[in-house]
Amino acid sequence: MAPIRLGFIGGAAPAMIGPVHRRAALFDGRFAVVAGAFSRDPSKAGDAAAEYGVVPGRSYASPEEMIAAEASRPDGIQAVSIVTPNDSHLRYVLAAVTAGLDVMVEKPLANSAAEAEAIARAVAARGTVLCLAHAYSGYPMIREARAQVAAGALGPLRMVQVEYFGAGLATHVETQPDAPRRWRLDPAASGPSLVLGDIGTHAHHLACYVAGEPVTRLSAELGSLQPGRVVQDYAQLRFRLRGGARGTLTATQAGAGAENHILLRVWGERGHLEWRHDRHGELRLAPLDGFPLALTRGHPLLSPAAARAGRQRRGHPEGLHEAFANLYLDFAALIAARRDGVAPDPLAVLAPGVAEGLAGVRLIAAALESEAQCGAWVALQEGEGQPL
Amino acid sequence: MAPIRLGFIGGAAPAMIGPVHRRAALFDGRFAVVAGAFSRDPSKAGDAAAEYGVVPGRSYASPEEMIAAEASRPDGIQAVSIVTPNDSHLRYVLAAVTAGLDVMVEKPLANSAAEAEAIARAVAARGTVLCLAHAYSGYPMIREARAQVAAGALGPLRMVQVEYFGAGLATHVETQPDAPRRWRLDPAASGPSLVLGDIGTHAHHLACYVAGEPVTRLSAELGSLQPGRVVQDYAQLRFRLRGGARGTLTATQAGAGAENHILLRVWGERGHLEWRHDRHGELRLAPLDGFPLALTRGHPLLSPAAARAGRQRRGHPEGLHEAFANLYLDFAALIAARRDGVAPDPLAVLAPGVAEGLAGVRLIAAALESEAQCGAWVALQEGEGQPL
Amino acid sequence: MAPIRLGFIGGAAPAMIGPVHRRAALFDGRFAVVAGAFSRDPSKAGDAAAEYGVVPGRSYASPEEMIAAEASRPDGIQAVSIVTPNDSHLRYVLAAVTAGLDVMVEKPLANSAAEAEAIARAVAARGTVLCLAHAYSGYPMIREARAQVAAGALGPLRMVQVEYFGAGLATHVETQPDAPRRWRLDPAASGPSLVLGDIGTHAHHLACYVAGEPVTRLSAELGSLQPGRVVQDYAQLRFRLRGGARGTLTATQAGAGAENHILLRVWGERGHLEWRHDRHGELRLAPLDGFPLALTRGHPLLSPAAARAGRQRRGHPEGLHEAFANLYLDFAALIAARRDGVAPDPLAVLAPGVAEGLAGVRLIAAALESEAQCGAWVALQEGEGQPL
Amino acid sequence: MAPIRLGFIGGAAPAMIGPVHRRAALFDGRFAVVAGAFSRDPSKAGDAAAEYGVVPGRSYASPEEMIAAEASRPDGIQAVSIVTPNDSHLRYVLAAVTAGLDVMVEKPLANSAAEAEAIARAVAARGTVLCLAHAYSGYPMIREARAQVAAGALGPLRMVQVEYFGAGLATHVETQPDAPRRWRLDPAASGPSLVLGDIGTHAHHLACYVAGEPVTRLSAELGSLQPGRVVQDYAQLRFRLRGGARGTLTATQAGAGAENHILLRVWGERGHLEWRHDRHGELRLAPLDGFPLALTRGHPLLSPAAARAGRQRRGHPEGLHEAFANLYLDFAALIAARRDGVAPDPLAVLAPGVAEGLAGVRLIAAALESEAQCGAWVALQEGEGQPL
Repeated sequence: MAPIRLGFIGGAAPAMIGPVHRRAALFDGRFAVVAGAFSRDPSKAGDAAAEYGVVPGRSYASPEEMIAAEASRPDGIQAVSIVTPNDSHLRYVLAAVTAGLDVMVEKPLANSAAEAEAIARAVAARGTVLCLAHAYSGYPMIREARAQVAAGALGPLRMVQVEYFGAGLATHVETQPDAPRRWRLDPAASGPSLVLGDIGTHAHHLACYVAGEPVTRLSAELGSLQPGRVVQDYAQLRFRLRGGARGTLTATQAGAGAENHILLRVWGERGHLEWRHDRHGELRLAPLDGFPLALTRGHPLLSPAAARAGRQRRGHPEGLHEAFANLYLDFAALIAARRDGVAPDPLAVLAPGVAEGLAGVRLIAAALESEAQCGAWVALQEGEGQPL
Repeated sequence: MAPIRLGFIGGAAPAMIGPVHRRAALFDGRFAVVAGAFSRDPSKAGDAAAEYGVVPGRSYASPEEMIAAEASRPDGIQAVSIVTPNDSHLRYVLAAVTAGLDVMVEKPLANSAAEAEAIARAVAARGTVLCLAHAYSGYPMIREARAQVAAGALGPLRMVQVEYFGAGLATHVETQPDAPRRWRLDPAASGPSLVLGDIGTHAHHLACYVAGEPVTRLSAELGSLQPGRVVQDYAQLRFRLRGGARGTLTATQAGAGAENHILLRVWGERGHLEWRHDRHGELRLAPLDGFPLALTRGHPLLSPAAARAGRQRRGHPEGLHEAFANLYLDFAALIAARRDGVAPDPLAVLAPGVAEGLAGVRLIAAALESEAQCGAWVALQEGEGQPL
Repeated sequence: MAPIRLGFIGGAAPAMIGPVHRRAALFDGRFAVVAGAFSRDPSKAGDAAAEYGVVPGRSYASPEEMIAAEASRPDGIQAVSIVTPNDSHLRYVLAAVTAGLDVMVEKPLANSAAEAEAIARAVAARGTVLCLAHAYSGYPMIREARAQVAAGALGPLRMVQVEYFGAGLATHVETQPDAPRRWRLDPAASGPSLVLGDIGTHAHHLACYVAGEPVTRLSAELGSLQPGRVVQDYAQLRFRLRGGARGTLTATQAGAGAENHILLRVWGERGHLEWRHDRHGELRLAPLDGFPLALTRGHPLLSPAAARAGRQRRGHPEGLHEAFANLYLDFAALIAARRDGVAPDPLAVLAPGVAEGLAGVRLIAAALESEAQCGAWVALQEGEGQPL
Repeated sequence: MAPIRLGFIGGAAPAMIGPVHRRAALFDGRFAVVAGAFSRDPSKAGDAAAEYGVVPGRSYASPEEMIAAEASRPDGIQAVSIVTPNDSHLRYVLAAVTAGLDVMVEKPLANSAAEAEAIARAVAARGTVLCLAHAYSGYPMIREARAQVAAGALGPLRMVQVEYFGAGLATHVETQPDAPRRWRLDPAASGPSLVLGDIGTHAHHLACYVAGEPVTRLSAELGSLQPGRVVQDYAQLRFRLRGGARGTLTATQAGAGAENHILLRVWGERGHLEWRHDRHGELRLAPLDGFPLALTRGHPLLSPAAARAGRQRRGHPEGLHEAFANLYLDFAALIAARRDGVAPDPLAVLAPGVAEGLAGVRLIAAALESEAQCGAWVALQEGEGQPL
């Protein structure tokens, strides 16, 4: 298959996630980055075009211009990667989908449930592919965890714990004019809950992705650890999964000394598993009756899902680039299946999409409602049989 | 100083904690075990007397009998260790205190705030020493953690997390007639919240002990992970410390595959520290601006509190026996100071006592009240300036 | 700078290292893969060309043909990556260097000291760049380790330990016709010591790279753990560094259950450091007098060398691809400096080259001489002031 | 069984190992410490008597006096613990054995093979029990490791690695008059190889204990890491086990920043196991074909040997005191069996004794011989079917 022609929306420096998307797209040779609307600042856009290997004539002043201009080329873009601030997702996704482009978009899908639902309708109407960049779900051992739960290794689920601690807001960045990703401090851009939209949604997705069940009820505590902060940097959720398991989600970006710590534990009747971001190539499985096992990436006994997601031989470390590359690998497979009018590889369907995006936005809405009621339990609207 | 003469209340097999107390009492030669009311079952009592090295004539049929008989001997007991089920603590503590004996008692101090307050009044009236066996507070690196926080290493506190996961109730022990510590399944004996009285109170104590502040408000979710279980095996608390830091406490005895996992993290403006039970000799300190440090037991740079609590040279492992022994070391020092009418060694005052026992019982009461109100926030009664 | 045009020598499936080189070359956009002599098997070559994105007309039947044909194109290759079996390195490197191409070549540089010296002379005569793919030296925390030693963090060195354990030869692969990398079992292809040429040379390089000193004397035990094996799968070296420190190197590919384990410890008068492959993003530094430190990739206090070698933010995992990409980053910088006739960036000079290749081959020769004498100590010829 | 009456030879402060023996002896109530020849310095002896709980009349000026005086008492000592410098072991062991006393003695058994053989003859002639305080062999997971190897979990052995790094001699203690255990710096007291007698012999014992095979050949490098040091602080041995497996032993007391690091790896045809002192409650077992396992103390699936050696429930940490206590538990069982004229519990026979002491002394002699010949391979005299 010839590489899929990809355009970027956003991605100029100092944003950090754009180059990660670029490398992930190129990782397996399934995509070629040929165009971009990297920034409204021409100078930044020019630098980005050079970095991304895009010729000047295909570096555009706006996403709308790119979509229009590329549509008229025989070798125009076939897909877009959207890596702009959250409040622009709706507009750009709709523009791209309307133009028949397949979309990879950063999380959260949108800043409100209404926006996310509009996206869902557009994607359903047009039949295009939309993948959501919950990159951690691309780690091979996260996919192994999901496979283990699905295969019943833990028995019925009883309890889930997920944590996400970063240090990006551990100091009073509000007073630092050159703090990275400063747009996040504006709720209009970052959405109604900074902590949940930025990192909590990853934690939520990971928990449900591995458990294989959606959250149906929750109670939330939202606020700030940093005195005087207007945006939220702390979230603590209690929740129930559809099957009745209890769960907790704790997230903050104000954890002094934290190094993007993510921890997931899933407990069942017959044992539990634990995954940590700083040892992402290992999955610890502690059965009720046997010795604890260390499942490691590359091991010949792993599930097909984990095997497919690995690039290096056993004992040769991978990182976040490979996790992201797995999302793009799935994205490419879904696009190919759509074009061919065939069912996609079941392993490619593991990439998160519209349903997960909707679930994420709804969770944030429910958490805000709970917080407004001092932590009362709130039921989540479930949507139409989403596969989470 | 001649060894303090100690009598045991409880401690016969198959109870497991009695021998741990015995070894801890003997560890530093400050106590001699000379009497016991080990069990109401004469056969079990006889076996225990042999194991504890108590001569038959000083193995009694009941605590009351022991206290009375020993009081009439010139070499009678001077202190008691009470290791019986929770619902008997009130009676035996009062009996001992009334007789002027110093007391080491298992946690929780009592099954209700009213009972705990009665104990507090009796101890205050008689002026005797009462230590509460929150053994984990005896680990040298827990004392180091407390010292680091007190010295301001973390700056103002922002967040505290404590977890305690065991597997003792991971199966349906209700249907296993010979399950160990079966008395716990009877709420009349174990108190109104099995999980909080059994392990949650340890987690609560650890968090406050290291943070140096009491819990002032909480919201609780209490229940069971095991379907069909009557007693509580799961607790999840949100709380606020006096200084405003947010906290979470999560505990269960129904964690399949757990190995008495305890984890404590304390976060401040300038960094955080982390302690895990399975590496109890190490304290990880991650500053906001420097490299993470591994503080290890025996290191010459540790605080006086941690140095005093170590028995082995650096690199020579210790365990729970030494942690328990530290409580007995403190107990002996407090008794000696009381007898001499002098202020005790400030480092010995680190052992938990009546105030901590009261705080523990009140926390359970507040959690039950919150659970009854679907997790509403409940303020804790603070008591009279307790030093926690 | 326009991307450097790169051709591959070798790299068709089932060889595994070729695609790693390809991704590393593309990682930072400094190279474009435009040609290849991937395999003498046309079918395999065709598959590889497609995978590497090379147009059919630039996929050649032999390296010689590629070098000649590309030399006549205005857009011909400027550099080659040589990923063929060891016994072909001499021929292909000489052909490339003679044609004025810059070279990235897999380790070991050659199968004998005489071959390596011929390469060294050719490179010196032509003034081209040659980098040696000791990829582990590309890990940021290995570069940090080197910087720490160079800065005197350990004081004078006393002891070095390096281990490399793999499982590729843990079973009797000699009887498995489809075992991967089967050519290694033929000493004519893999060289006089399979274990040293395959993995021991990596261990040797890492030790000297971090210590900043060459090996001057050694005593070796070489042999096989697997009964009946003709090639060597086990090596144990004692050595002395130039400054007098003692060292050990232990390597085997016959370690059942090993997962490409590499461990390096460097000890000095004032402390030691430890690095493990399975936690390659962390460097543990244990000073004589302070608490042990965990230096982690991305930390703002790291050396310029480590900072330059990182691609992801702190807490976002990297892997072997990034380590390899660092070698290509250095390779590109060295090529640019050569073209511009300026001194290269001192941080790019950290990539291993001819001197390290010579040192590696000479170490193997000395080890074989020692083994032939039952482990007698053998002095190493030092070459002309190589910077190791 | 009434407690065995035990006397101490040595053990006064500032020696550190005496109190560890005392606690271990008392741990399970099998011994009572009733007498001692703690020191030739009356003041130190008096302090020690108080600490050990020995009445003044049974605190003697010399071991000979103690043995004679106690022999005339009806309640005289039945066994001795010898914790004096190495050069005195021969004299005190012979005195004790001649008097019919059972003996626990610190390692190494003696300072020469001739001395050790004299001890062996005396013990054989008198039929008493002699246990050697290789305390690390008392750790439950070391006993599990031995059981796993014996049960064939690894298949035929291929390779053994053992390391022991301490920091006691990392500075120039020769110039520090109050350095602890200063007698070790005098070869007349500590024996011909300080590093091997002090810690190397532990490493040697551990390796053979777990492998279940003796060393039959070795090549040694002995010397000092610390410039100007007269005694040896560094040892590096290559060896072969009886079954042909290759091995390495590396030990130093001059490892700046080391915290009594001990690591043992045993590799076989079907997998390997790894044990580290700083996580002594865990044994990692990596099979060739399955996922790595973490065997943890207290797990119900452990061997009888490991189960017997545990005191705390799973997840409740133990330490070196319990390991030492296991040696005393075995010592008591062996004494009881001797008195009763019955075969001892096979699990008690796991305690090291005369055969292990002889093997240890002979290994040191062979290492010195090898070092004198620049590392030549030396065959070990095997003795008469010792069970190592």
